Amino acid sequence: MYTFDFHKRVRYAETDKMGYLYYGNYPKYFEIGRVETIRSLGFDYKDFEDVHGIMLPVVGLEVKYLEPAYYDDLLTIRSSLQTMPGKMISFHHEILRPDGVIINKATVKLFFVDVQTNKRVSAPTFMVDALKSHFDQEN
Amino acid sequence: MYTFDFHKRVRYAETDKMGYLYYGNYPKYFEIGRVETIRSLGFDYKDFEDVHGIMLPVVGLEVKYLEPAYYDDLLTIRSSLQTMPGKMISFHHEILRPDGVIINKATVKLFFVDVQTNKRVSAPTFMVDALKSHFDQEN
Amino acid sequence: MYTFDFHKRVRYAETDKMGYLYYGNYPKYFEIGRVETIRSLGFDYKDFEDVHGIMLPVVGLEVKYLEPAYYDDLLTIRSSLQTMPGKMISFHHEILRPDGVIINKATVKLFFVDVQTNKRVSAPTFMVDALKSHFDQEN
Amino acid sequence: MYTFDFHKRVRYAETDKMGYLYYGNYPKYFEIGRVETIRSLGFDYKDFEDVHGIMLPVVGLEVKYLEPAYYDDLLTIRSSLQTMPGKMISFHHEILRPDGVIINKATVKLFFVDVQTNKRVSAPTFMVDALKSHFDQEN
Repeated sequence: MYTFDFHKRVRYAETDKMGYLYYGNYPKYFEIGRVETIRSLGFDYKDFEDVHGIMLPVVGLEVKYLEPAYYDDLLTIRSSLQTMPGKMISFHHEILRPDGVIINKATVKLFFVDVQTNKRVSAPTFMVDALKSHFDQEN
Repeated sequence: MYTFDFHKRVRYAETDKMGYLYYGNYPKYFEIGRVETIRSLGFDYKDFEDVHGIMLPVVGLEVKYLEPAYYDDLLTIRSSLQTMPGKMISFHHEILRPDGVIINKATVKLFFVDVQTNKRVSAPTFMVDALKSHFDQEN
Repeated sequence: MYTFDFHKRVRYAETDKMGYLYYGNYPKYFEIGRVETIRSLGFDYKDFEDVHGIMLPVVGLEVKYLEPAYYDDLLTIRSSLQTMPGKMISFHHEILRPDGVIINKATVKLFFVDVQTNKRVSAPTFMVDALKSHFDQEN
Repeated sequence: MYTFDFHKRVRYAETDKMGYLYYGNYPKYFEIGRVETIRSLGFDYKDFEDVHGIMLPVVGLEVKYLEPAYYDDLLTIRSSLQTMPGKMISFHHEILRPDGVIINKATVKLFFVDVQTNKRVSAPTFMVDALKSHFDQEN
């Protein structure tokens, strides 16, 4: 398993009239979580598209909203890869409040798609290789 | 069962660099779908909060992204209540492209919460009564 | 002068913790105003990019916030072209509350840019021609 | 004068189909710039509302878009207070690309409003005092 923490503050733009982080803004937090997790492995998601010609459209999203987040909260976006990416990649996310309480849990599933052919492909080798050590060391 | 269709156009603000309706903007579409469904039953969601002191925070969200939507597409947000609301309310949504193809399916679950006490309550009687006829006529 | 009214409802997603339509969401309203104004003239902005190879990046924005807008308000976006587009195009917008009060005034300036060369061009002839009758009749 | 730099990365959610940071997302960047500038002075904007009962609605916004920003760019939001806040406060912002080029300039004007009475008030003393040293040292 590979896990990475990234911090993001709740902005006024993201609140709603209940005073909560609007429920529809969480997917943006998950996007930030997975892009920064990929960066922590040594890759820019930008290069997936621009250099390697692979884009990762989201195909599934499941979210459990446990507690609200509030304006100016410095949240932790905890992202983990629990299985090696193959035909698809699944990110598991937990959002933690400053006091450490988990307020949100989510799973996001993405396909690998060739930008030119618009056809599904498998996880690129360079990504699989970078992840291997993190999964091997668990055995 | 009660079903309601509402139409919404994909705006430039909602697209991303893939040229798609960004995956994180769909929850806003579901919000619009359920609010307009409630309005079609004769109620303003606004009054739930302002008059009846009940708010409906989202507690669960499941989305399947089948096909992308594009800029300026006039989408149909089809929302349905398949069971009578009680301790919670579940909205089922389908997003249809102009050509009638279903490109997205989602389920959104919400609690009823008393604004004053912040405690869970049941679906308000006026809403249950308005829905009854739609469910009765199916027997 | 050419003026066009379009109606848009304030969504929960667009409110902030003050209970207002967030100040940063108005530019999206201006986008909707100008795109629907162009549509009212018989054109799809989408075709500007896809068929004619012209995009209209915004180069200037001036906004005066006079009064707040609130959740579920059905606002009027009043857009007007006060001068014929040439080297650039200027949209003047007024946002009106349901009671007719003007709550926001804005000017948005856009260039015409060739998608291929990324160079500035003049307003396309078909647009100038469509607008001519509206400006001529004022003399 | 008081100037503060804050860094923010362009997210996928913020791009549009031109591949640019959508023009309507800049006001959110200015919000982040002014809130972090206030934090750098030792205050939380959150406390303005929650502790001191003062909110700062935006009343004017002027933006010049010089160059586009792109996905994953790590932008600098440079915010400066060029005059002491009194009846209002004006933030001047410059957005810089990673290569140091200024791509956007903006001025945002805000009022101080008493949350209880909804009436305009002057800049709170604690803020004026904190800024004084930065302005005095320029003489």
